[in-house]
Amino acid sequence: VEEGDAERLTLLMEPLHAADIADLLEQIDSSERKALLDLYHHEMDGSILSELDESIREEVISILRPEVLAEAVRELDSDDVVDLVEDLDAEQQTAILGALDQTDRVAVEQALSYPEFSAGRLMQREVVMAPEHWTVGDAIDYLRGHDDLPEQFYHVVLIDPRMHPIANVTLGKIMSSPRSKPLAELAETVFKAIPVSEYEGDVAYAFNQYHLISAPVVDAEGRLVGQITIDDAMAVLDEEHEEDILRLAGVGDGSLNDRVFETMKQRFPWLAVNLVTAIIASLVIAMFEDALTQIVALAVLMPIVASMGGNAGTQSLTVAVRSIATRDLTGSNVWRVIRREVLVGLFNGIAFAVIMALIGIAWFGSPVLGYVIGTAMVINLVIAGLAGTVIPVLLDKVGVDPALASGSFVTTVTDVVGFFAFLGLAVLWIL
Amino acid sequence: VEEGDAERLTLLMEPLHAADIADLLEQIDSSERKALLDLYHHEMDGSILSELDESIREEVISILRPEVLAEAVRELDSDDVVDLVEDLDAEQQTAILGALDQTDRVAVEQALSYPEFSAGRLMQREVVMAPEHWTVGDAIDYLRGHDDLPEQFYHVVLIDPRMHPIANVTLGKIMSSPRSKPLAELAETVFKAIPVSEYEGDVAYAFNQYHLISAPVVDAEGRLVGQITIDDAMAVLDEEHEEDILRLAGVGDGSLNDRVFETMKQRFPWLAVNLVTAIIASLVIAMFEDALTQIVALAVLMPIVASMGGNAGTQSLTVAVRSIATRDLTGSNVWRVIRREVLVGLFNGIAFAVIMALIGIAWFGSPVLGYVIGTAMVINLVIAGLAGTVIPVLLDKVGVDPALASGSFVTTVTDVVGFFAFLGLAVLWIL
Repeated sequence: VEEGDAERLTLLMEPLHAADIADLLEQIDSSERKALLDLYHHEMDGSILSELDESIREEVISILRPEVLAEAVRELDSDDVVDLVEDLDAEQQTAILGALDQTDRVAVEQALSYPEFSAGRLMQREVVMAPEHWTVGDAIDYLRGHDDLPEQFYHVVLIDPRMHPIANVTLGKIMSSPRSKPLAELAETVFKAIPVSEYEGDVAYAFNQYHLISAPVVDAEGRLVGQITIDDAMAVLDEEHEEDILRLAGVGDGSLNDRVFETMKQRFPWLAVNLVTAIIASLVIAMFEDALTQIVALAVLMPIVASMGGNAGTQSLTVAVRSIATRDLTGSNVWRVIRREVLVGLFNGIAFAVIMALIGIAWFGSPVLGYVIGTAMVINLVIAGLAGTVIPVLLDKVGVDPALASGSFVTTVTDVVGFFAFLGLAVLWIL
Repeated sequence: VEEGDAERLTLLMEPLHAADIADLLEQIDSSERKALLDLYHHEMDGSILSELDESIREEVISILRPEVLAEAVRELDSDDVVDLVEDLDAEQQTAILGALDQTDRVAVEQALSYPEFSAGRLMQREVVMAPEHWTVGDAIDYLRGHDDLPEQFYHVVLIDPRMHPIANVTLGKIMSSPRSKPLAELAETVFKAIPVSEYEGDVAYAFNQYHLISAPVVDAEGRLVGQITIDDAMAVLDEEHEEDILRLAGVGDGSLNDRVFETMKQRFPWLAVNLVTAIIASLVIAMFEDALTQIVALAVLMPIVASMGGNAGTQSLTVAVRSIATRDLTGSNVWRVIRREVLVGLFNGIAFAVIMALIGIAWFGSPVLGYVIGTAMVINLVIAGLAGTVIPVLLDKVGVDPALASGSFVTTVTDVVGFFAFLGLAVLWIL
């Protein structure tokens, strides 16, 4: 690139998959990216744009010349164009939509009219369908007679006269059956039609749970309007997981490619919430100022109880948040899970109480201090198990994403209980 | 179930998908499970067993009578049997293998000879292949003439005379082309053969990155030995994510269905590591006992600095661990990412330093205390950004899973630096 050798660059990039070229573009810095694109723009492919991370994609689109962009976008399936367009600002959006054919533009605009993160945004409109009375022969003749078929398709969807999908037939079944066989006899046993308004996370869950490969999407009247394929569902599943992990850590919806200022803005609110939490904990400590001046060992040991509680709480909470996301934690087993977490907290609490009491005695030579820290440890680990399970369940009940908010609540509880139990017991038993 | 009405139970369960029945079995408790299985065993399906969580599966298999089990297993594809068998104890394994036909048993035993978590364990041996010179007509005739085809297949794999796979042809392309068309002309542009020894996480990554639907698996000599389909890759992706989330939270590889004692054992080691971390932090505090007895405000405020550092460190670390897992963080951009994280730590540190300094002054009326906590905050947040990125990268370099071990290291660093900076500056500036 540095030598401006466009031909050699094209030669080097040729064997790479679009996804790898996108990764390459993401990993170099902004000025290198501009230099590379200046040399490479005539080879720019729509699928490279699809694979790019949002934050980089906007930059790349603004670098590309309009005619290159138009060319690149025209080859894409409608669902990929939607994916590309939905996060752009209005001006870039209009430029891309303008580059499309009339029919494609209508399709994309229609898709954009569905709410964000819905099945309607995810689906492609290209579906291969057949009337329910067709035979294998009819289907093969129809397919051979059409050259506007989707790039990838795995099923023929059988529809009734009102356009309601009634069954899926896999291509494998069709190909291995004689021409006279009615398609209806080859229908798959598992068949799910997805409402166009369904949340994309639920769509991904259904694909994973029922091992679907593609599923028809229906509108409010039950008419076939498109289909979702497993590769799109897999991408959604991947994003949902990513979101869960990042939210659990209090990192908004960031990406590695965001700039310093954006990243700061994403993380600031979580740190601010944590500051409030930490100050609440400090207020609890401040209640015991007298005790702390009299026995300095309390100040030395108190972070241990809070820290163990925070860790145990995070363990319980992560298991609970994951189980809610995978629908393994439901009304019917929530009490059993809570009981288990509390018991785990109790037994681990006792184990660490003994260890910590012994350390306390050895370190400060005070058996009472040992009892205090041991008892506080048991209390805090039990509360951690309880809060770590109950808080995400309650948040989920009231419609708040438990991955997003549980952490702060649970840490507040374990900090407050940890400091209060340890310092309070010290006042009661030692002073 | 309570009334022992087997017929009504069968009727109720009939419309449910195997995955839903498995979920039902997971959510009821152990005695209910036994009662239900006693009534339902004659309907027990192999696919229900496949869908069950490991911990429950073993229990269910030991309840089922051998002939029911044999019947249930016989319907499954070889990859599902492998998945079922690999986690069982030797006795149950022998029982299941004994129930299979000779050919299936050999297939399963062969698969079990590949290392755990390898492509060989994941693949199914059933592949539809065709010599490279065949036409569309040849393929259709072949498929119609065979009734031992896999349940689901999406590609025909073209092979050369030495059994090396050379291309994938989608069924859609075959069906929409005239009989005389050579298959080789319909080959897909993206084609990946997966080595039988490849790690399953890498397989899932390749499927997600390149939007594969199925991929041939080859042995060390490059010969076709099986194929992996996207639904299996999706399940692996799901497990890998689950593992990452749970490991980041220090919850080993637990499941919601594990019993109290198992759960205790999984979580104990992480809490033990945390105890060591917390004690190291306490040793730092103990170095400043004199200062703490003189100014009790230090004891009240010191957890705030440590807590903010811990949180900021977790944010950086989670982003780094995820980016390593998705291969977005590589040698070529690691310095840029470290610089970003340090700058984010610096700017957020300055913002919170100002806030916290004002709170400190307002609360304790001491400007110097404000400067101390502010400066310590900046130092700790910068170190948090640095440690949160460098530690996972280094762990990954030396071959340790960064999700597993980064947390403890980063918290140790932020606790030690937080307490040391705050108390140390207090000694320098106030006393």
